[in-house]
Amino acid sequence: MLIVHKYGGTSVGSLERIENVTTRVAKAKKEGNDIVVVVSAMSGETNKLIDYANHFSSNPSKREMDMLLSSGERVTASLLAIALQEQGVPAIAMTGRQAGIMTDNNHTYARIETIDPRAMQKELDEGKVIIVAGFQGINESGSVTTLGRGGSDLSAVAIAGALNADACEIYSDVDGIYTTDPRIEPKAKKMDFISYDEMLELASLGAKVLQNRSVELAKKLNVKMVAKSSFSDAEGTVIGEETEDMEAVLVSGIALDRNQARVTIREVSDKPGIAAEVFSKLAKNNVNVDMIIQNASTTDGTTNLGFTVPASELDQAKSVIEAFDHDIGGMDLDDSVCKVSVVGVGMKSHAGVAATAFCALAEENINIEMISTSEIKVSMIIAEKYAELAVRTLHASYDLDK
Amino acid sequence: MLIVHKYGGTSVGSLERIENVTTRVAKAKKEGNDIVVVVSAMSGETNKLIDYANHFSSNPSKREMDMLLSSGERVTASLLAIALQEQGVPAIAMTGRQAGIMTDNNHTYARIETIDPRAMQKELDEGKVIIVAGFQGINESGSVTTLGRGGSDLSAVAIAGALNADACEIYSDVDGIYTTDPRIEPKAKKMDFISYDEMLELASLGAKVLQNRSVELAKKLNVKMVAKSSFSDAEGTVIGEETEDMEAVLVSGIALDRNQARVTIREVSDKPGIAAEVFSKLAKNNVNVDMIIQNASTTDGTTNLGFTVPASELDQAKSVIEAFDHDIGGMDLDDSVCKVSVVGVGMKSHAGVAATAFCALAEENINIEMISTSEIKVSMIIAEKYAELAVRTLHASYDLDK
Repeated sequence: MLIVHKYGGTSVGSLERIENVTTRVAKAKKEGNDIVVVVSAMSGETNKLIDYANHFSSNPSKREMDMLLSSGERVTASLLAIALQEQGVPAIAMTGRQAGIMTDNNHTYARIETIDPRAMQKELDEGKVIIVAGFQGINESGSVTTLGRGGSDLSAVAIAGALNADACEIYSDVDGIYTTDPRIEPKAKKMDFISYDEMLELASLGAKVLQNRSVELAKKLNVKMVAKSSFSDAEGTVIGEETEDMEAVLVSGIALDRNQARVTIREVSDKPGIAAEVFSKLAKNNVNVDMIIQNASTTDGTTNLGFTVPASELDQAKSVIEAFDHDIGGMDLDDSVCKVSVVGVGMKSHAGVAATAFCALAEENINIEMISTSEIKVSMIIAEKYAELAVRTLHASYDLDK
Repeated sequence: MLIVHKYGGTSVGSLERIENVTTRVAKAKKEGNDIVVVVSAMSGETNKLIDYANHFSSNPSKREMDMLLSSGERVTASLLAIALQEQGVPAIAMTGRQAGIMTDNNHTYARIETIDPRAMQKELDEGKVIIVAGFQGINESGSVTTLGRGGSDLSAVAIAGALNADACEIYSDVDGIYTTDPRIEPKAKKMDFISYDEMLELASLGAKVLQNRSVELAKKLNVKMVAKSSFSDAEGTVIGEETEDMEAVLVSGIALDRNQARVTIREVSDKPGIAAEVFSKLAKNNVNVDMIIQNASTTDGTTNLGFTVPASELDQAKSVIEAFDHDIGGMDLDDSVCKVSVVGVGMKSHAGVAATAFCALAEENINIEMISTSEIKVSMIIAEKYAELAVRTLHASYDLDK
């Protein structure tokens, strides 16, 4: 088996933890597998370097930031290779460039364009464990680029795809994907399996184990991901293609996103294009609008327009909307809301999943302020004070603790 | 003018010191010069990384050490470029690879083979200050290599040569080359000029400002070096080709090397080849023999063989010699000696320079245990307790404090 391991910053956060990773990798190699390891910077290192750069500039050049930040992963990769060699495991450290990772020119948030796996394949053929510095590649002019938040996960999945690996194991301090946040609902169960689409919904709804970009890439490349803990031997959760017999499962998990704010624009002139103009201005100003509700026009020819944005973007949204003061009656802002979501591929083919959620919340007298549904999720905006109660209620109403 | 600046670890040892370097570089640029800056890692960083590696292995792989250690210079280069850009100075950071520095495969002590200056020239043509991560290049297989101790000086000189720069200014915490160590002789004078050959002798005799490899390369490429302080505006010392009128100067400086030990092998069998065998065994065991004295054979057909080695290699030398116990009478070791040297190109064409030294030391009752001379230096081994007295005496006897 050819397996890609990826260890995040916490898993390599100290020399002792790198030793722990060394033991894991050596064991996997000795079991007869070919291993490629992708590593992040030691936790804290990247933030330290960002602080250094901010000492000199509040808006440092992205090209130079990439050269700066890419150094942290190289340190971890070198150290892990040295530690493996000391254990008698043949190993070689590679930068993103040496691993053949070519990206576009979008510094600090580059996209992987191609991976030339020949250099890695050659080392694998010689029996070596390869340690790749994650989060980085080079662009066509040879400058170092980084892949943005969660970039090492992306490196790992892309490498697994390029090498046609049997699995891409993502190690962190969490041992898998749970039916909901165990800190809120102690009865939450770790899932053995979750489909790419469900994982994407859960991740975008606040589950923090895997970044969406890497799951999307895994889906595209059909790479089997496994979310595991580097601190235990627990089995982890497989993320893969949904299978036939999964249809029996209606709902996989309950997600909670506290980072939500609701905006209501009152008495919008019912002229064509005002709503469109509002949303295009918001987009231009990098405000990510999530749910939208527009009521039917009232008799005075105006309408109310409601939507949600990340709480951190509320101020930005406010100043965009203030520019429309001649066409609107006013606005209400509410950042004490949250979004609870029910996710599951099974609900595609079953009616009544949403109704179960509405009834469960109604029984607890939790008012649902906005609703949005997709094929595999139902999201509801509610007052933030009900967040934990709503999660536990929904978790129980779909029998997820069984 | 095209000027290469090189800042060592102390000069970029903190964010405040990097700011200071930023000011210097910006000033030089605004005076109308083209500037390439070569930087070392922030002081302490390289040792920290070495400690990390030694945590895992007492003999870490050199290839991985190079990838590990090269990260420190990249951090400094990125930060300095960011700081310059913030000051409105167009700047770009480059790794050794991006600067076109190709080396041989000798990891941790690589030699620069070629520099392709086209990428640097392109950025200079666009008016940018280039910040190159020192100490590093890549080999033909694309692995990162480092140049060994003093490697950033080498990078700077090689780049100055490849770009045909007008000068290569080496900044440190010392403001130039002195006639002797000012901590020993406060009357020591900073030199305005010193020839490559004199600098080579002084450096190999213990002066710490410039490493020999970089001076040798500067001589070969005819690069004008300037040793300056990054903490003052003092003029510094130019290191260049010796000129005609320099012949008036007999002696340039007095050097002291305390890291010396003397070995005497007693009653060596006067068989052909024993001495040769001793020295080739020492060389094979990486013991650097400096001065050698072999007395004429005594009437019993044996001879005494004396030589000096660095004090740190004395134990190694001892174990090598012990293997010859059947052919020698015994050995004496003395690590309480030092080497004082008189250096100057003028002495080539003047008799009597050595005699002045011998007389001066004799007047102070300092016994000279061994002597070696070259065209431009006279070195003497004396008891270490006389080190400072000998330096001051010689300094005065050649009128260096005038």
